[in-house]
Amino acid sequence: MEVSEFFPVWNKLTENQRATIAGAAFERDFPKGGILHKGGTECTGLILVQSGQLRAYTTSPDGKEITLYRLFERDMCLLSASCMMNGIQFSVWLTAEKDSKVTVIPADVYKAVMKESAPLANFTNEVIAERFTDTMWLIEQIMWKSFDRRLAAFLVEEADIEGSNTLKTTHEAIGNHLGSPREVVSRMLGYFASEGLVKLSRGTVEIVDEKRLRELADE
Amino acid sequence: MEVSEFFPVWNKLTENQRATIAGAAFERDFPKGGILHKGGTECTGLILVQSGQLRAYTTSPDGKEITLYRLFERDMCLLSASCMMNGIQFSVWLTAEKDSKVTVIPADVYKAVMKESAPLANFTNEVIAERFTDTMWLIEQIMWKSFDRRLAAFLVEEADIEGSNTLKTTHEAIGNHLGSPREVVSRMLGYFASEGLVKLSRGTVEIVDEKRLRELADE
Repeated sequence: MEVSEFFPVWNKLTENQRATIAGAAFERDFPKGGILHKGGTECTGLILVQSGQLRAYTTSPDGKEITLYRLFERDMCLLSASCMMNGIQFSVWLTAEKDSKVTVIPADVYKAVMKESAPLANFTNEVIAERFTDTMWLIEQIMWKSFDRRLAAFLVEEADIEGSNTLKTTHEAIGNHLGSPREVVSRMLGYFASEGLVKLSRGTVEIVDEKRLRELADE
Repeated sequence: MEVSEFFPVWNKLTENQRATIAGAAFERDFPKGGILHKGGTECTGLILVQSGQLRAYTTSPDGKEITLYRLFERDMCLLSASCMMNGIQFSVWLTAEKDSKVTVIPADVYKAVMKESAPLANFTNEVIAERFTDTMWLIEQIMWKSFDRRLAAFLVEEADIEGSNTLKTTHEAIGNHLGSPREVVSRMLGYFASEGLVKLSRGTVEIVDEKRLRELADE
């Protein structure tokens, strides 16, 4: 995919601005499990997802994790370029959940064009607003939803992403998505299994009663 | 305070743009307890705080609350104008915690100027990024901090805001800030009192051992 296709406002940039962005962009491949961005330590740049799947998450001082949002083909990650947004002062990690190809636009290049282009600045605004919405949704989930419903919601979302009711994942990985200890995940999955919602085997969670699991998730 | 003083980029707007914004702006007074913005139901506009103190919070379907951030003199609230940001799809409530005077810039006016002004769009970006940082901080608090430390942090923050160690507040109000039931707040405050950190009386929480409370908050 061309860089231009990621930006609905591409036609509103000057020829010069388009050349600046396209000329500075470069491709990178990350194998599954690869780290694209480590917290607040570096200024990776704006990341455009060509293929694969990325996971943005935040970590506790003692290494616990919670997923903030996922990025798929055609998505754009601004927080890995938070160095270019003066107001943002928190750190996000970004890893590849599948083999992924991304295009990177260096933060200083993007920032320079955004500074002089109202269309690009307004578009960037909207992308930030979308991620902001994702994290507000997360707050509401954490605060108001019980753990069984959050786990059910996570499982059906995963099934939708994978296009399969057989999920290859570990209890620990699920815990890292939801910000919960492995033991808590195992206990609730065991309960789900006893209720006939899922079937568990090593490294796999199989959804067997999708309808009831979705009802629980939507409660 | 003039509208211009709220915008560090005011000098980078055209004369026309400045007149448009200043001409559309109007003042409003809200008594303590007054509601400035009700969730997603209306497009209040951009709110500039002239004096007083505002509280932004989100609510659960059954009416529970959690404070997202506070706004003080010279602060600006964009989320009450979320209707003008296409990407934002969540609802924030805004109430006056003290008698407050605000200036409102209608959302459509602000949006029109922002659309053509790169400086204003970039400045708006930074304001959103700051609020985004506030809510990310909140996620980290909720996820990784135990309730005693969150309560201690809330009490010392309140004392800083009020400039007094005697806080006029109820256990229910504290619960609404922290997203916790009143009973949980009462129990922990009772524990704090038994440890000699605070003294409780009707409608008042008095901080008596500020040093230890701050240590607990920073743990």
